[in-house]
Amino acid sequence: MTQDASDTAVLSAIRFDANGLVPAIAQQHDTGEVLMMAWMSRESVTETLATGRVCYFSRSRNALWRKGETSGQTQHLKELRVDCDGDTLLLLVHQDGVACHTGRRNCFFRAMRDGALVEIAAPVVDPAALYGGHSHG
Amino acid sequence: MTQDASDTAVLSAIRFDANGLVPAIAQQHDTGEVLMMAWMSRESVTETLATGRVCYFSRSRNALWRKGETSGQTQHLKELRVDCDGDTLLLLVHQDGVACHTGRRNCFFRAMRDGALVEIAAPVVDPAALYGGHSHG
Repeated sequence: MTQDASDTAVLSAIRFDANGLVPAIAQQHDTGEVLMMAWMSRESVTETLATGRVCYFSRSRNALWRKGETSGQTQHLKELRVDCDGDTLLLLVHQDGVACHTGRRNCFFRAMRDGALVEIAAPVVDPAALYGGHSHG
Repeated sequence: MTQDASDTAVLSAIRFDANGLVPAIAQQHDTGEVLMMAWMSRESVTETLATGRVCYFSRSRNALWRKGETSGQTQHLKELRVDCDGDTLLLLVHQDGVACHTGRRNCFFRAMRDGALVEIAAPVVDPAALYGGHSHG
């Protein structure tokens, strides 16, 4: 199948919301660790499939967000999955380094335990070294 | 910590969107399987923590959606996690039966392979037996 036909197949299965976006869950393909959730536009889906490197759409910056472009913490796409209703994507990826802008491996490092919200993971890299002030990359 | 204090701790960490909702990813706690993504309101978070059974908010029905109430396919909460920005939840659950209204174990049963979107899992229960016509439950 050509790239264009392939793009059409997946894009037609995705129900983008009123803002033209769809939530995408990134999961480390081999360990099953849920790394993060972010948003994708049609263009970011197409680019991700073409390059094999995950490209989101940053709602705060209103622009394509090539994960790792600034930080070096790239996500390599292993497989893209679409849910039953077409309104959520699951990206099986290999994460270089850390997914979270706080320097933690994944973004879900706060858990409700005994009625309190506690940190269950510490940064493994210095976030300042990742971005020099940017909050995401 | 009292239930009220516990609710306050987690609710204050969550950034609900303009519609008062936050996306919640359900992951089978022991296998790491990503089951589904749905939305929660403040009330559904509070109820979920109080009962230990996952309660979403159905955008199509504009009402609380007690997962499994109709279908019997209940999700039992093992742990609730909040991401770095507070705008996504990760629910570690034990899923009774199947998560997907199509009768599949999880909702992400369509994958891009060789440029085509293909089904990678078959229903394990008859969806008609789950709902008698409802699309979710």
